Parts: sequence; structure tokens; C-alpha cells
Amino acid sequence: MKFCADCGQEVAQQIPDGDDRPRFVCQSCEKIHYVNPKLVVGCIPTWEDKILMVKRAIEPRYGLWTLPAGYLEGGESVADGARRETREEAKARLGELTPYAMYNLPEISQLYLIFRAPLLDTDFGTSSESLETRLFLEEEIPWDQMAFKVIKECLKHFFNDRKSETYPFFIEDIKLDRRLYLDR
Amino acid sequence: MKFCADCGQEVAQQIPDGDDRPRFVCQSCEKIHYVNPKLVVGCIPTWEDKILMVKRAIEPRYGLWTLPAGYLEGGESVADGARRETREEAKARLGELTPYAMYNLPEISQLYLIFRAPLLDTDFGTSSESLETRLFLEEEIPWDQMAFKVIKECLKHFFNDRKSETYPFFIEDIKLDRRLYLDR
Repeated sequence: MKFCADCGQEVAQQIPDGDDRPRFVCQSCEKIHYVNPKLVVGCIPTWEDKILMVKRAIEPRYGLWTLPAGYLEGGESVADGARRETREEAKARLGELTPYAMYNLPEISQLYLIFRAPLLDTDFGTSSESLETRLFLEEEIPWDQMAFKVIKECLKHFFNDRKSETYPFFIEDIKLDRRLYLDR
Repeated sequence: MKFCADCGQEVAQQIPDGDDRPRFVCQSCEKIHYVNPKLVVGCIPTWEDKILMVKRAIEPRYGLWTLPAGYLEGGESVADGARRETREEAKARLGELTPYAMYNLPEISQLYLIFRAPLLDTDFGTSSESLETRLFLEEEIPWDQMAFKVIKECLKHFFNDRKSETYPFFIEDIKLDRRLYLDR
């Protein structure tokens, strides 16, 4: 951030009165601009003993596999966001969504919230955001062609939980090399 | 948003190519500025059969009661954020945090994530953000002096769950009159 979104004049990093960390403060209108972490919502769509994954048709990580997921929009609930991303990326329709995992990615100020959800049918397909969509058995998962570490960790956790068929909600940290993840 | 944070020129609301909703787009450098929902993290600090609440010393809702909670900072995990807010607002130290509730507030593009956590001791107190901090039994909760609907709903849920001593994680929506909540 270089300029004030309210008045268009220059901002500078300063610690405001009563605060304890630097913020972007407008040097003209004095507005303080806070930078907030972003939430990514997504899901593990299931069909019998398979899960649905999508091969990315967009950067970053073009051509690599992931789960349907994307930034939560303003005015949207987290479950609605996960449902929308699944429709947009895989043209798939979900049944009931159950919260499953939250991941902190502090190096890039992101959070992931992942649901589990059964597919309503197998009428899924590609979109402008996906090169391929398909159902995978656990032994078919392309572990070495995964787009994002957080999704890889989530799926490992999922298949481990599936052994006991219990899926308690959990929160974990993902440690990233920030230089590699600047755009996501 | 009126001006581009990158170049200081005017922005306008437009639907970018491949998108389906209006965004703030710079009319000079063409940067698209997405507006993301904000996450508030907080907790229900417990001590024996009491919970710790704080009376707000800041606007909005000056003089009304709430739980320790505030915006998640960049680079911070959700549990660390709840711990920090509890320390800042009530000078209290928490034991292990357990995720308890998530609330969608779509009218104001906010999310709340609330943990349960035992206090480590009763060395809590007021700060620049709180007029008063105290432990409440359920029957002492000041229901008609609560600062935020979401906190009221969360505490009702908590005391109901406490009857059975089971606290499953849940996600619910809070319906707000946006005109009354513009600043929070």
C-alpha cells in the first residue's frame, strides 16, 4: 500500500496512538488502513470411497491438483463460499457441509477453512478454472502433483481420520516459505 | 474505496473479465482491489463455573459487556489472536484454547471464531480497552447490557451446551441490521 484509498494521498508506516504495531497511515487525512488476513474456504467433496479433485487451469500452480477452494467473498457465509467455489471450479453440487479443518498460514496472512461434503451426483466437470476434474481413490491421489501444501496436509489428515470414521474439527499451522507463496 | 492503493489514481466499480461481480478497479494501472471479509477472534475464558467478561472502554458500545475478542492481525494464528485479545482487554492468561463456535455476519462481511479456554489464574484486570473485568455465574450475566448480538448468542449456546458438558464445534449465521453495525 502506497496511497490512501480514501483520499489518494501518500501513506506511511507508523504506530498509531494506543497501538503497538506499524500501520499504513494517510499523511493527509490521517486514516489508518488495517491489513487483515484473508480466509480461503473449500471442501473435500466425497462420492462413495472417492474424493473429487480439480487440476488448476489458472496460475499460480497451473496444471497441479487441488481441492475446490477460494477466497471468501464479502456478504457470504463460509459454507456458501465453499459451495460456490465447488460449483465454479468443478461444476459440482454438494450435500450438507460439515466443518472439518482450519489451517493458519501466518507467513502469508491466510487462513483455510475446509469442509467435508458428499457430492449430490457425479455430474461434475471442468470450467474456465480447471483443466480436469476427477474422483480419486486414496491410492490414486497424485501426491507429487499437488498445488498447495495445505491441501496435501488436509488430505493426509482426512485419510487418516477415515480409518476410524471419526472426523473431529481441528486447527493446525502450515509453515511456508513466504518467498514461494507471495500470490496465494 | 475511492483511490488505488498502488498508484493513487481513481478507482471505479467494474466487473473484471472472467469475474461475475463488481470490484474496485484502478482506472489508471488497472489493478483490481478485492475487499475481503474480516475475522474476529475471541474466547470464553472460564474459571470454575464462572466466565470472564469485559466492560468496553471504547466505542462502539462503550460501557457494555462482551467477551475478549478483536480482529485477527496479519501473521498471527487464530489461537494466538484470541490469546492476545484476552491479554490486551482483560490482562488475563489462558490455558489451552479449544475451538468452539464460528459465526457468519454476512451483512457486515465479518466472521467470528470463538474458543473456550480456562483461565490460568484470577490475576486479570482492566486495561485501556476495558472499564471493568469480572467473573460471572450464569445467573449473573448482564443479558440486557451486552455489546454485541453475536456474543449474546454465543453465550446462550455455551450455557446450553454446559448442561450436557459437551461442546461440539458449530457454525451459525447472525442476522444484523447493517445500519446499526457499520463500524463493527
